[in-house]
Amino acid sequence: MSILVVGSVAFDTVTTPFGEGREVIGGSATHFSMAASFWAPVRLVAVVGDDFTEEHRRPLAERGVDLGGLVTARGRTFRWVGAYDYDLNNPRTLDTQLNVFAAFKPEIPEAWRDTPLLFLANIDPDLQGEVLDQVKGARLIAADTMNYWIDSKPKALKALLRRVRLLLINDGEIRQLTGEPNLVRASALVRSWGPSTIVVKRGEHGVLVFDGAAAFALPAYPLEDVLDPTGAGDAFAGGFLGYLAARGLDSDLDVRRAAVVGSVMASYQVEAFSFDRVRRLTWPEIRDRYQKFIHLTHVEPLP
Amino acid sequence: MSILVVGSVAFDTVTTPFGEGREVIGGSATHFSMAASFWAPVRLVAVVGDDFTEEHRRPLAERGVDLGGLVTARGRTFRWVGAYDYDLNNPRTLDTQLNVFAAFKPEIPEAWRDTPLLFLANIDPDLQGEVLDQVKGARLIAADTMNYWIDSKPKALKALLRRVRLLLINDGEIRQLTGEPNLVRASALVRSWGPSTIVVKRGEHGVLVFDGAAAFALPAYPLEDVLDPTGAGDAFAGGFLGYLAARGLDSDLDVRRAAVVGSVMASYQVEAFSFDRVRRLTWPEIRDRYQKFIHLTHVEPLP
Repeated sequence: MSILVVGSVAFDTVTTPFGEGREVIGGSATHFSMAASFWAPVRLVAVVGDDFTEEHRRPLAERGVDLGGLVTARGRTFRWVGAYDYDLNNPRTLDTQLNVFAAFKPEIPEAWRDTPLLFLANIDPDLQGEVLDQVKGARLIAADTMNYWIDSKPKALKALLRRVRLLLINDGEIRQLTGEPNLVRASALVRSWGPSTIVVKRGEHGVLVFDGAAAFALPAYPLEDVLDPTGAGDAFAGGFLGYLAARGLDSDLDVRRAAVVGSVMASYQVEAFSFDRVRRLTWPEIRDRYQKFIHLTHVEPLP
Repeated sequence: MSILVVGSVAFDTVTTPFGEGREVIGGSATHFSMAASFWAPVRLVAVVGDDFTEEHRRPLAERGVDLGGLVTARGRTFRWVGAYDYDLNNPRTLDTQLNVFAAFKPEIPEAWRDTPLLFLANIDPDLQGEVLDQVKGARLIAADTMNYWIDSKPKALKALLRRVRLLLINDGEIRQLTGEPNLVRASALVRSWGPSTIVVKRGEHGVLVFDGAAAFALPAYPLEDVLDPTGAGDAFAGGFLGYLAARGLDSDLDVRRAAVVGSVMASYQVEAFSFDRVRRLTWPEIRDRYQKFIHLTHVEPLP
């Protein structure tokens, strides 16, 4: 089952305590697609400038990502410059140049309007709504957002959430969105607005999934070497939705295994700059880390 | 199998966004003992002032905690005044009055010097060492510490760690102790100093246990109502070591079940001020939440 993702493709310049990635390929749709491509066919809708060459497309194309919706506009590609301190949780944004992304109006190719699984990566909620209007055939709609839109367009965001089944969001963002510091209460509130499944991403602390009345908590994989956390949330979403697409949408969503798969992809994402580790992943490596998650979290009943 | 704990007994005045506990019974040894008492016989060594009455002793005595090492000195009991903001992670300390605790020299009753399991709660590492010198019969030695001692007595603390099998410590504290932001590396470093098992307490994010080469990660129980986080780490330690004592020390330490039991006790601890929730716990409630932890964290293999 195919996934359609609409989001950003960018050039990132990232400094961490362990090195620098200069003008590496970034963007939410990019990292999502790369991770999801191991699990399901991916269709990518985004805009780049004429500085985004064949060479830049190649890693995604090699992973089978369909770039038929990647539009090239005149001008420069979106740029982000950020830096992480030792705690590696939140980057400081040093510079953002929207460039061609400023005028982005997502146009979904006619043949893609019945894609069953739609992921609205973090862009303007008004644009996310316009995408939804076009993809009439979507059966599962998932969305991400960020503090910028919660601040500047709370009404548009809430209107969008009424149409979304599955929300992926950071812990800080869901607290901001709801004004509720307790994550259990905050998630219940957001569920009352529309999405029946909330995935709260907590960075190095893992994820909390609220799926109807059930809760599932998964720690992040404890890594010795984290090189660059950029794109971890997007790789998580790619693995999470990629797994759901691979399983099909005819029975209950298997959000537990999906969350482990997402965490596996995210744990590899942070081991290198850009998608350099994820793009080279093998199936034995993916399965091995999935098994390690089982061991990491396994609890026996009381004797 | 009995546990001997040496630490503080105090009166706490705590303000949280949900209320105030004024001059409630606090202290590391108190909360530890209350939680551990469900699992094993507990012997408590601490000092209080003459304002700590029979009525204050009653809750611990009713739970069967042996108060034969609770010395009453002339003067006032240790006082702590703190406040939590909405994030409930770290309290602001508004006032600390050591009072009789300033001159505390732990004297272990003769009959207790062969207690098999010894918990050195968070006190001056020099005093922790003096306790160790007295409890010659201890077979399992566990310790806690805090940022204040890491700052002021790093040498004494490192000397103590050489003699400790099991260290319980906060994530921020182990980073400070080692100068290493990565928890996997920080724990490996501390293990090279002595303790073979490190339990990293991460507050609302749960615990990470490094036991030899194995890692175990457990999220905290997602609660809708957290009233007061004070003593959560001590109740965790009480459940963790209480369970180990109940199982006996003749085989490998079952640190996974112990960590779940600790998390169960901590999750109840934060539902009320002081030990008001824990002291009223029933076995069905304890077993029920243990089962909920299994469900919360359960991961199936890939199909």
